[in-house]
Order: sequence, then C-alpha cells, then structure tokens
Amino acid sequence: MFWNEEIETMPRQDLEELQLKKLQSTVKRAFEKIPYYNKRYSEAEVYPEDIETLKDIEKLPFITKDDLRESYPFGLFAVDIKEIKELHSSSGTTGKPVVSGYTEKDLDTWAETIARGLTMMGIGEDDILQNTHGYGMFTGGFGVHYGSHKVGAAIIPISTGQTRRQIEIMKDFGATGLIFTPSYGIHLAEVALEDGIDPKELGIKAIGFGAEGWTEEIRQRVEELFGTKAYNIYGLTELMGPGVGIECEAQKGLHIAEDIYYPEIIDPNTQQVLGENTPGELVLTNLEREGMPVIRFRTKDLTKITYEKCECGRTHARMSRITGRSDDMIKVKGVAIFPSQIEKALLKVGDAEPHYMIIVTRPGTLDEIEVKVEVSQDIFFDGVKEMMAVQNKIGKSIENETGIRVKVTLVEPKTLPRFEGKAKRVIDERNLH
Amino acid sequence: MFWNEEIETMPRQDLEELQLKKLQSTVKRAFEKIPYYNKRYSEAEVYPEDIETLKDIEKLPFITKDDLRESYPFGLFAVDIKEIKELHSSSGTTGKPVVSGYTEKDLDTWAETIARGLTMMGIGEDDILQNTHGYGMFTGGFGVHYGSHKVGAAIIPISTGQTRRQIEIMKDFGATGLIFTPSYGIHLAEVALEDGIDPKELGIKAIGFGAEGWTEEIRQRVEELFGTKAYNIYGLTELMGPGVGIECEAQKGLHIAEDIYYPEIIDPNTQQVLGENTPGELVLTNLEREGMPVIRFRTKDLTKITYEKCECGRTHARMSRITGRSDDMIKVKGVAIFPSQIEKALLKVGDAEPHYMIIVTRPGTLDEIEVKVEVSQDIFFDGVKEMMAVQNKIGKSIENETGIRVKVTLVEPKTLPRFEGKAKRVIDERNLH
Ligand SMILES: [Zn+2]
Ligand SMILES: [Zn+2]
Repeated sequence: MFWNEEIETMPRQDLEELQLKKLQSTVKRAFEKIPYYNKRYSEAEVYPEDIETLKDIEKLPFITKDDLRESYPFGLFAVDIKEIKELHSSSGTTGKPVVSGYTEKDLDTWAETIARGLTMMGIGEDDILQNTHGYGMFTGGFGVHYGSHKVGAAIIPISTGQTRRQIEIMKDFGATGLIFTPSYGIHLAEVALEDGIDPKELGIKAIGFGAEGWTEEIRQRVEELFGTKAYNIYGLTELMGPGVGIECEAQKGLHIAEDIYYPEIIDPNTQQVLGENTPGELVLTNLEREGMPVIRFRTKDLTKITYEKCECGRTHARMSRITGRSDDMIKVKGVAIFPSQIEKALLKVGDAEPHYMIIVTRPGTLDEIEVKVEVSQDIFFDGVKEMMAVQNKIGKSIENETGIRVKVTLVEPKTLPRFEGKAKRVIDERNLH
Repeated sequence: MFWNEEIETMPRQDLEELQLKKLQSTVKRAFEKIPYYNKRYSEAEVYPEDIETLKDIEKLPFITKDDLRESYPFGLFAVDIKEIKELHSSSGTTGKPVVSGYTEKDLDTWAETIARGLTMMGIGEDDILQNTHGYGMFTGGFGVHYGSHKVGAAIIPISTGQTRRQIEIMKDFGATGLIFTPSYGIHLAEVALEDGIDPKELGIKAIGFGAEGWTEEIRQRVEELFGTKAYNIYGLTELMGPGVGIECEAQKGLHIAEDIYYPEIIDPNTQQVLGENTPGELVLTNLEREGMPVIRFRTKDLTKITYEKCECGRTHARMSRITGRSDDMIKVKGVAIFPSQIEKALLKVGDAEPHYMIIVTRPGTLDEIEVKVEVSQDIFFDGVKEMMAVQNKIGKSIENETGIRVKVTLVEPKTLPRFEGKAKRVIDERNLH
C-alpha cells in the first residue's frame, strides 16, 4: 500500500532529476529572497547557477542551529508574513528558540510526508489514531494531526499526560493506532498493566514512535507490550517537523521523503560528504518549502543511508535509526560513548528494565560514570548475592559495548524519573565544578 | 467587513426558511440514523414530518448532558467511524465524558463559524494570532486554530502556560491578535507588567476571549490592560466547540451563527420556550452537522436573545453574555446567587483586584458565605483602619448586588490561585459535612 505510489516508487534516475530541479529552484529562491543566504553564498562565491548537478550541493555552505537562532524570529522567511499560516518553534532551552514558518502549501507538504508514513503503517480512513505527542509550539503533535486528516483516519488529539485517561479512551474509543515517544509508550503500558489491562488486548494495529532516541531493544519491548509493530518516525522542527523519514513494513530503515528532503551524510569533524552506508552526521535540505527553505542543515544526528531498493518496493533512500548526536556524545576518559550504547548493553541483560540514568562525575582528575538501572521486583527479593550477580552482568555488558568500566547501581522498580517528552538520561556533573 | 456577507446579512425571512430546511433534514437524518433519537421521538410520538415550521421544534424532546453521557462513546454518531476525522471530548470530571465527532465537512463548518468571528474582530491574513487556549481533547484550541487557517492569519498555537515565554513570543513574533480566557489574560498582563513590559505597547489589535464566565467589568479590565477591544467567543464541545456565538465590533451581544445553530431560550424550571429579550436557559440545535447532530441541547447556560438587526449590518440573532449556569447557581439562605454577581459587586469597588474566591459553609444550621478578595499592596500599607473601610465597602457592594450579607476577607496581592483554564472560584464546603 502506497500513499503516493508514483513518487514513492519512482526510478532513482527520475527521482534525482526531480530533486535537482527542486534544489535549483530552492537555492535560487533562497538566494533572491533571503538576505542570510545571499550574504553567505556571495561570501563563499557560490551562486544558484553553479548548481548543475546534485553533487554541486557540496559547494554550498552548511547552515547550523546557531545560524537559525541568529535569524530569530523571521530572518529566514522567503515570503511575506501574510503568506505564513502557522508558526512553530523549538523549545529554546539553550539560547533563543528556532522558529519555523509554514505557508498553506507547506502545511500540505508536511501532511503529505506523514500521510505516506501512516499508509506504510497500515493506518487509513478506517482507523482511529490516538496521538499522545504534545501540541503547541512543538511540531510533534501537529505533524501527525495533519497527516491523519490527510489519510482520513479519526484523530484523537489527546497529547501527552493524563495517562489513566489515555488508557480509558484507548479502550473506549477503540483506538487502532498509537503515536508516542518510546518512553511514554512503555509508561502507558506499565500503567495499563497495573490497572489489570493487557495492552495487547486493546486491538492496536500499529504504533508510530519518535521524538527521542531509541534502540532495537526498546522497540522490541514496545512491540511485545502492545503485541503489534512499532514504526519509527523521524523529523525535526527546523526542517518542518516529523515526517523526514518513516519506516515501512520491512522495518529496515526509515524511508526519507526524498522528493521533499535532500539528505547527505558528512563526517562531523572534517565536514566531508561520506558515501552510502558510512555512519556520520545527517545533513538535510528542504526541496519543497515555500515559507522557510533550509539548505544543508547540520542536524547533529548520527546515522547512515542506503540507496538500495527496499523490499517494500519504495526507491527512496533509507536512513538507519539515529544512534546518537554528534554533540551529546559523552567523552569519558578520552573515549566517545553514547547513551544508546549503554541502553543497548543493559537491555541485553534480561533482568534490567529499560529505565536508567547515566551520571558522569570527576571526583578527582579522572572521569567516572555511574549507571543507575531499575531492576525487577524479583531481584530485590532474591537477596544481596543475586543482586551482586546482576550488577556484575550489567557492568560487563556495558564494558563490552563501550570499552569502559562503569559503576552500576541497581535501584528499585519505578524509582527513576519517567519522561513524557524527550528522555533526559545523562547527568553530566563535571561541568558543575 | 464580513467573512460571508450573503449569509451573515441575509434577511430574516430567508434565513428562517433556510433554518427550517436544515432543521427538517437534520431531524430526518437523526431519526433515521441514530437509535437514540428514533427511540425518543417514537416514544414522544413526534416524527420528522411533524416539523412543518420552525416553531414545531418545540414538539421535540430536549437532550441533556446526561443523555450524551449515556450515549458514550459513539452512540450519537450519524455516520460510520470511517467518516469521522477527529474526536474530542469534554473533561468528564463528573461521570463519563461527552464525546464529539467531526466529519471533514464538520471541521470545515466549525472553521467557518470562527472565521466569521475573527473577521468581526478585524483579524485576517495580515495578522499573527497567538492562541493560548489549550489543544488536546478540549475544543477551545482547535476551533480557533481551524478558523485562523481559514481566514489565513498566521497562528501561533502556543496553548496555555509558560507565561513568560508567551510574553516573549508575543513581543518577538509581533502578535496582533490574542485568544485567552479572561483570567489567563489578566495573569498574562500582570506578569508582563512585573517584567517591565506594558501590554498596551505590544501592538495587539484585537482579543478574543472565552471558555469561562466573565463580566463587563472584567472585559473593561482586559481592554484597559491591553489597550484594545476584547470580543467574547461562546461555544461548547457538545455542539461542536467555540464559535456558536461571537461578538461583532458593536460589542452588543454575540451573533449566533444561525444558519449553523438554532437557538431557543427556555425557562429552566417549566421548560417553556420564552420570547425575545427574556432571560432563561439557552437551548441549541445543530443545523449543519453530519457526524453528530445534537438537537435541542439544554446548555444550562443562562442568557437572553434579541432578533433586532445589529448596527453592524448582521441579521443573525444576538445572545447576551452568559450570566450564570442554571446549575452553578449557589443557593444561600434560600436566595439564588451567581459568582458573576459577586464579581460585579467587588469590581465596582476600585480597590479590589479581580481575583477572588467564594467559600460557602454551613457552620451550624445557617449558610455562610465568605468572599476572599485580593487588594492592592497600598491598602496593606495604609493600616488596619483603612483596611476595615475597604472591607466594609466591598461588603456593602455585595449586599447591594445580591441582597445577602457576606463575610469579606482581604488578602494580599497574588495570594489567591490564578486559573489557566476555566476559573473555579466557588468552594462549596456544605457538601463535605
Ligand atoms: Zn521499504
Ligand atoms: Zn453586530
């Protein structure tokens, strides 16, 4: 099932021709309408007519989150505010927020990307889709909302929180699709189980999840809990919102809507463009955006891309799940490690719950990592010896995965914080001293 | 300026013909498609063909919130779930919630009512509209959102909370329109003033407010604080959401979108339909709703209606602001009083802030009312004698307005709760004993 079969299965040569045409007109519009690009490109002595092939995109300078912040609020708009129909922004916990502006056509393009994804997940007009992503300035809720309207499903725009009410509505309304962040999904399932409701019995056909990091183990846990497949949705407010990449039924990478976003992978240090299947930082370009075209945005998200045709029949490139961020890497004892590695390691140990916190300290001159992990109630009943064994197992598993020795502390079930938005699992106390 | 001049200024005779046709088809569809109506109308021995004039609507039984609850979740839907594109529900603090279902056409009809209102307020495609109503199951946020899309304004879907961020965005984005509940609006203004920002300088052109009770004094306060006009928006989730009635520039009552809602006023005790300009309970009927037609809904909201042509040129009936609810009347010492009366009384006394709580107790066998009122900081500096004088003034003003003696307690500024949604100003402790 395809939402837009012609585009989604387009032979790659045709697709690339389409991309080139759209890239050329995007760069031209940006150069002509937006002083920021005009200045940057003039300084770099690269002009719209220099884009003769897709590869020529590499001549263009990158744009970073800082550049977007400096253009706050509307400095990157290519149209008059009259044409803008909706405004979103990132949370701006560090510095000024980043604003995202949408024309009517942009809102429709955004909905199109999500509609393709919902169709991949098997969600259509017969379905009832419960959307636990937050609405507001955050784009998570609205992206899914507009996509749901487009495919004609009945959206329940419940947003995050009120977990017991969520479960009641899920059951009473007969939701067949769920959208959540993995950590909130697991929390939902846990609360349902506490109340004697087996999430598997709710008749959920498909789950879309995103807006925070995850591992295959987390996905498996979600799928087991709800007894159905869970599909990853990737996107970011700067580029439009969720919908940049969505998994198909094969679950072998997220199809990037390549007629709408042009992806590149670069080495975050040298900034060189890397080849297929080589991990690096994702760089994205809006090919289809009227309100605020963003060209060569450094996402800081680490992934790799394959252009091999997918077993689902789609020709659009697939990105792997994000394995970390080039800037939330924790450097400990000179080694770069990612929270996702620790998550993977401890999920390999059967007795650990997928709830954990990583605390990095520097008591003297050396870095130390402590990983607090929730274990099942049973372990606590089994006594100290058993707990020591589990602690050792987890420690070894983490050392295996990261090459680093960490201190493991087991804590009782439900004592670590649950996250209703993006999980914040790393506490780096080294900067406090 | 009209959004839909032909409909909004239609001669009443034509309008009534249009209403009759829509009423007939609504009743017919409800009778044929919805078992609830089929049963109720059959029992009352009234059938679709009995609706020959608008007056014949009085033959139909009323529907109440309890009826809607008993139809939970989808018992009042006239279409297959396949046709439903969005689901909302009331909060359900008492008993099961009420569900509201929308087809694609219903969402458009809903947007149409708000688009008319935004146009009355002077909000159009050049404007930036900051919507502080909550999104989610509540209809407040989405109604305004869809209406804003329709008129082509740029919506900032910020929803409630994060007050300092709200003010920053208002300023930085150059919002020209605001949507809020009166109590949240006053809170916003107070916080802005604390931060040295005069809300009057923000360049707000128009304010739409609703979702809670208000008085003319509260409106005046809001208008003074923001230096612009504030327009009332009325609606309820059961019927669709906000947009049933909206004020025009004359601010002499809310124009009911009469081609979409058929209004009646009844005596809440005898249930007799009352004439023009006679206060009573508002009863509403959906004339245009596919998903879930609600016929003769007892809103419990008290108001009156005039059919006189408005100075703005619109022919649609105007309802007065809601003066109370037939069921949130506080009966004290046998007298019915409304929080709005107390609000009015204490706002007449210049020294009181519009923040207050009403506490009803029954220490022995007699009811007592205590009104806690915030006063300005100055009063506290003026000493006990001055405070006693203010206390007396407020007490007399309330007695004047309600005919009842109450105990007045002055409290320091900012010590009473602020409400970000519907204000809950009455604490009735009589039921606790
Ligand atoms: Zn595929
Ligand atoms: Zn008028």
